Amino acid sequence: MSQQITVYTSKSCPYAHRVELALVEAKADCTRYQIDLRNKPDWYAPKVNPVSKVPALAYGGPPVPADQPSPESTKLTESLVLVEFIADLFPESGILPKDPVLRAKARLFADAVSNKLVPAQVAVLIRDEDPEQLVQAYEAIQALLPPQGFALGPFSAADIAAAPFLARIELNLANDLGGFPANEGKGPKILELLHAPKLARMQQYLKDIRGHPSFVATFDEASRSVTLHFLCGHGH
Amino acid sequence: MSQQITVYTSKSCPYAHRVELALVEAKADCTRYQIDLRNKPDWYAPKVNPVSKVPALAYGGPPVPADQPSPESTKLTESLVLVEFIADLFPESGILPKDPVLRAKARLFADAVSNKLVPAQVAVLIRDEDPEQLVQAYEAIQALLPPQGFALGPFSAADIAAAPFLARIELNLANDLGGFPANEGKGPKILELLHAPKLARMQQYLKDIRGHPSFVATFDEASRSVTLHFLCGHGH
Repeated sequence: MSQQITVYTSKSCPYAHRVELALVEAKADCTRYQIDLRNKPDWYAPKVNPVSKVPALAYGGPPVPADQPSPESTKLTESLVLVEFIADLFPESGILPKDPVLRAKARLFADAVSNKLVPAQVAVLIRDEDPEQLVQAYEAIQALLPPQGFALGPFSAADIAAAPFLARIELNLANDLGGFPANEGKGPKILELLHAPKLARMQQYLKDIRGHPSFVATFDEASRSVTLHFLCGHGH
Repeated sequence: MSQQITVYTSKSCPYAHRVELALVEAKADCTRYQIDLRNKPDWYAPKVNPVSKVPALAYGGPPVPADQPSPESTKLTESLVLVEFIADLFPESGILPKDPVLRAKARLFADAVSNKLVPAQVAVLIRDEDPEQLVQAYEAIQALLPPQGFALGPFSAADIAAAPFLARIELNLANDLGGFPANEGKGPKILELLHAPKLARMQQYLKDIRGHPSFVATFDEASRSVTLHFLCGHGH
């Protein structure tokens, strides 16, 4: 049996959302503590994460309130490291399958999210660069998908890595929230490019993600579309 | 028992060196094929790795010569994904320990190498920027080391991630090979900064790495100090 788990999270942060998805997939008994990224509590950096980002996880140690973390618990960070940690703690969860080849494919999919999708998201949604970058990133992710189902078939660490970013891209663009000029409808226009017939498989993937129980349980559109500051270095 | 393993590698590439270290640690029966990064064989991109980088690994499929890869083998890339893959294939190797907390610590150490050490190496050795960046990266890695031994105590995936880069930094600086002006002795001067008393723990770590059997078996100073082009996007 695993020891106590406290996760420090924030609704707007896609990195933290990965960890919340993994915890729900694992049916882990855990404590969630919301960190206000615009007004972080004084104890957070010294007692949980020296670089003051979410997500962070405290594991083990004595039973304490989440806002009074014990020095005896192990503090871990980095969203993909935390997803692997939860997969290791709960091997029966299926977050990572047992087959080494499938595990490698899940990690390569997460790598494509980190090195293709997220940089394109920053370039287009924050820096107002050529939307074609995001179209190409969608094509790169789409190329890794099987004809149907999630990245490995069943929902896995691969989808946990991608879903929080894809959902926020679509939601922000639909709401015209980005680093582009306001009230010109640029967001919805970019969204049209992402919904082109050549990206139909990605749209099915997004539909499948939106209907998946752990995603439904962890994504609240109203509270997650209001900010883009996660792309400015708060999460990791 | 695992299926056949063919690794496509290059002596100058620290990313490929990680995979070679893991294969030696795992005592894996495998075929090594040297790719000349300045003159890659025509079949390499279409049949092994579309982005034409090393390292890459072919797993399974029929017995074929390494330079005639079968479409039936699984092709995998990305050095850290490959190290995890080898750890998954050979769980008794100790490349990754069984304890989830120690596994997370190995991954956080590798993350610090990717996000602190390698960028500082590129900045200082290639772009001739302020050497202080490299001193700070060494301090960051040093801060993760226990009082003695390797990153987790025994040699592990954490050290596999770091050793190829650390060894090349030291070797290139000692040989005054870098993006700085030739014949001014700048390399050895930077090396002096890295050998300051405040970085004594790092020097002990490097000494331990240089004496570790899998490192001795995979690092040939003569063939590995001649080039810096691995930092220009060939490996990953």
